[in-house]
Amino acid sequence: MTTVDLNSDMGESFGVYKMGDDAAMLKIVSTANVACGFHAGDPLIMYETVATAKANGVAIGAHPSFRDLWGFGRRPIHGERPDDVMKEVIYQIGALQGIASAAGHRVTHVKTHGSLGNLAEGDEGLAMAVARATKAVDAGLILMVTPGNQLERAGERLGLRMVREVYADRTYDDNGYLTSRKLPGAVIHDAKAATARVIQMVQTRTITAVSGKKLLVNIDTICVHGDNPAAVDMARAIRAGLEAAGVTVSPFAQTIN
Amino acid sequence: MTTVDLNSDMGESFGVYKMGDDAAMLKIVSTANVACGFHAGDPLIMYETVATAKANGVAIGAHPSFRDLWGFGRRPIHGERPDDVMKEVIYQIGALQGIASAAGHRVTHVKTHGSLGNLAEGDEGLAMAVARATKAVDAGLILMVTPGNQLERAGERLGLRMVREVYADRTYDDNGYLTSRKLPGAVIHDAKAATARVIQMVQTRTITAVSGKKLLVNIDTICVHGDNPAAVDMARAIRAGLEAAGVTVSPFAQTIN
Amino acid sequence: MTTVDLNSDMGESFGVYKMGDDAAMLKIVSTANVACGFHAGDPLIMYETVATAKANGVAIGAHPSFRDLWGFGRRPIHGERPDDVMKEVIYQIGALQGIASAAGHRVTHVKTHGSLGNLAEGDEGLAMAVARATKAVDAGLILMVTPGNQLERAGERLGLRMVREVYADRTYDDNGYLTSRKLPGAVIHDAKAATARVIQMVQTRTITAVSGKKLLVNIDTICVHGDNPAAVDMARAIRAGLEAAGVTVSPFAQTIN
Amino acid sequence: MTTVDLNSDMGESFGVYKMGDDAAMLKIVSTANVACGFHAGDPLIMYETVATAKANGVAIGAHPSFRDLWGFGRRPIHGERPDDVMKEVIYQIGALQGIASAAGHRVTHVKTHGSLGNLAEGDEGLAMAVARATKAVDAGLILMVTPGNQLERAGERLGLRMVREVYADRTYDDNGYLTSRKLPGAVIHDAKAATARVIQMVQTRTITAVSGKKLLVNIDTICVHGDNPAAVDMARAIRAGLEAAGVTVSPFAQTIN
Repeated sequence: MTTVDLNSDMGESFGVYKMGDDAAMLKIVSTANVACGFHAGDPLIMYETVATAKANGVAIGAHPSFRDLWGFGRRPIHGERPDDVMKEVIYQIGALQGIASAAGHRVTHVKTHGSLGNLAEGDEGLAMAVARATKAVDAGLILMVTPGNQLERAGERLGLRMVREVYADRTYDDNGYLTSRKLPGAVIHDAKAATARVIQMVQTRTITAVSGKKLLVNIDTICVHGDNPAAVDMARAIRAGLEAAGVTVSPFAQTIN
Repeated sequence: MTTVDLNSDMGESFGVYKMGDDAAMLKIVSTANVACGFHAGDPLIMYETVATAKANGVAIGAHPSFRDLWGFGRRPIHGERPDDVMKEVIYQIGALQGIASAAGHRVTHVKTHGSLGNLAEGDEGLAMAVARATKAVDAGLILMVTPGNQLERAGERLGLRMVREVYADRTYDDNGYLTSRKLPGAVIHDAKAATARVIQMVQTRTITAVSGKKLLVNIDTICVHGDNPAAVDMARAIRAGLEAAGVTVSPFAQTIN
Repeated sequence: MTTVDLNSDMGESFGVYKMGDDAAMLKIVSTANVACGFHAGDPLIMYETVATAKANGVAIGAHPSFRDLWGFGRRPIHGERPDDVMKEVIYQIGALQGIASAAGHRVTHVKTHGSLGNLAEGDEGLAMAVARATKAVDAGLILMVTPGNQLERAGERLGLRMVREVYADRTYDDNGYLTSRKLPGAVIHDAKAATARVIQMVQTRTITAVSGKKLLVNIDTICVHGDNPAAVDMARAIRAGLEAAGVTVSPFAQTIN
Repeated sequence: MTTVDLNSDMGESFGVYKMGDDAAMLKIVSTANVACGFHAGDPLIMYETVATAKANGVAIGAHPSFRDLWGFGRRPIHGERPDDVMKEVIYQIGALQGIASAAGHRVTHVKTHGSLGNLAEGDEGLAMAVARATKAVDAGLILMVTPGNQLERAGERLGLRMVREVYADRTYDDNGYLTSRKLPGAVIHDAKAATARVIQMVQTRTITAVSGKKLLVNIDTICVHGDNPAAVDMARAIRAGLEAAGVTVSPFAQTIN
């Protein structure tokens, strides 16, 4: 029986401000990456997200970011020492662990958010900072990575358990890298097309690159979005499509070693 | 052999801004209450504080606050539901636990900061929120309280381990409550006088109230300050005085059940 | 010819977070109270709001708050000296004036937000702080007040120009005060009922209290909301109803002395 | 009679956190660059700084920054559109104008802080954003620049009045650029040496580069620091040295056209 994980970023509201339809997404995905207050999220939202995830059998992970609420963690912030970034990530993981502990749930993974992730993927120092932070809080935590970059390498060097993800709504080039968002067609907006791609990835362990070339992939989790109604619909279609194709959607945390 | 704990608030710097002489205080006290980022502190400062505490054999606790960096947690903020305050406290304890875990140390207690403490001492709902947060993260955590208020009662109701503190530099009335800061003499500025009072408290288990009346006290820890050079000097004098009087200064975390 | 002003709070988004349908509301109201970054709003949103207001012939005012982004300015924050609150209000008015200046518009009034307004309405010191701030930045600024409270009195004492507002969707008691939101019917959700009340207020200069008693009122502006689609619909219905009844909706800034 | 301006960054405290000895510096300099709340400063501190500057005959300017309190505006933040940075600068200038207006003073210039300045000096888009913001709020504002970079060019293109500054404690290469702080001797710590250099610059209109070459300079203002006691002493020595050499220290705002 084939199984795969569906993950999505959540808990990205702040105070009175709402972001995404977490209630809907927590019925669709098997894993939630929970914002920890640096780019979004606050203790109330984190608690609500974690408790609802628990109730729905959804696994949770920390989704740490640069300290940048106004920029939603998307501004590339340079000039921080990796050692300092490590401590910022530790703080965020710990905060979510506290919340999870109180809500009767358990943090099983770490996935970087926004610019922290983008910069860490290309910078060995930052990548090691994230991996070290993960290991320092709990060596059993799983690091979620996109295959082929510094973050994956850092996780390997430290012997972390890792899961690899692909994006349901993005296209890839012949080397397995995401095509630039600036290119036409780089983002897939059609739910059926995205579903078909995802089923292919899971069942045949290949992605069809934009050139038509088939790439071998070994994927543990598929990232879907919930920040607008169309995204939620696409995520729902993907889950339904996977199940109709006989694929079981369940948290990677239960299946990887 | 008589022992007592000396505690002080620490890690209250933020970014480039410095507050207090933590390096000096961590050689004087046996327990540090570490700010968790809501009224002061950031992951870098928390890590530094915790690592230095560890190196000096100083026990650590979380020092949670209302979210109020600008007001340093001193503004009385009303209108938050106790349940929400509980989650904010959980977040802060968890964040410090993450940092402690990474730095090889362990959080052993919780002491509220500023207005959160002041309001909780007089409000059953807030007091229960703080006590519940403490228990929810780790039922083994110790709650530090001033005797005789709602926070102590909440800790008792939930069966938390507790330590009682007095202030080295404050005077008390016949009922064992702090005299108002507005009264002349309410704050003791003379290091010798403060030291003598502290030795009396520890050795005779009494405080002399402003009226002259002797009050029986059962104190586990004495709060000293480090936010200015005179305060550091007073703390140093108190420690030296206690040791000269044959009292051992050591973390309460090692002695209470 | 009868004229009245319609005002609404705007520019209350922050970063990626959206609040309210400002584009729609700026086609309905004649005056916008623009958040200044303390409870909501940021320079980008302020600029967009002010520029769109200008394009639509909508007058603008500063909508200052306590510094409380997380609480959206709704947490009652005590313990600040009135003199300090005055400076915080000055800062916010100045910031909006800078934005307005750059966008070719002009700030004509000040209306307090949330808890700052609520506390100032009942506290002479805070009320004078707001009034002094307004006068200190520009003695020509108009203060928007609810009739009958400390804020109105403070404006009178300082000789400020003032406008009085009522809420389109709230009921009043026999003394002209808002009925508590906790009472059933205190908030009017039916657009037709609200429209009929507003037309009555403007044409007959009376409000019908919940007891049925008619109160004489002298109102310059009516507050409507835009934070959800139903609110926007109600605001649109009120404007249409006023115009159908022969009432001109235009900024009070053009009509009061 | 030769005159020159001495400027320093001020108002960089925040809440309970103190930075620099503004009271001392406001008796030494003729111009203060006042933090506007984005990297440091708050309305209380701004008001205090502006009022004391006014009392001491010190001119004031806005010292805008990226929104980065934790990083004190020193983190290079990329990814913001110049148009958005423009609005952020406008907001900050406006806020200080409001404060100045209330305190009976007047903002006469703009000087960028930290990373905003560093990035703008090398980036035409950001430089134009700062220059446009300055002009948009008040076309009479003076832009303070280091000679030879994009910010100066942007000011020239928009026809802004400008003043050029040098640093009292830094050395220059043969092209008139600052030598890297990483090179030994790049920062001058000796007050006498700094004073001698400053007097030479003002009296002979030359700087001696590290190579010994004399560079012609046309300088309106000299930047001194006040963030530690040694810096304050150096600033005081420079002022005394200038006066002993017959140079008048007075705000450039009074002398340039």
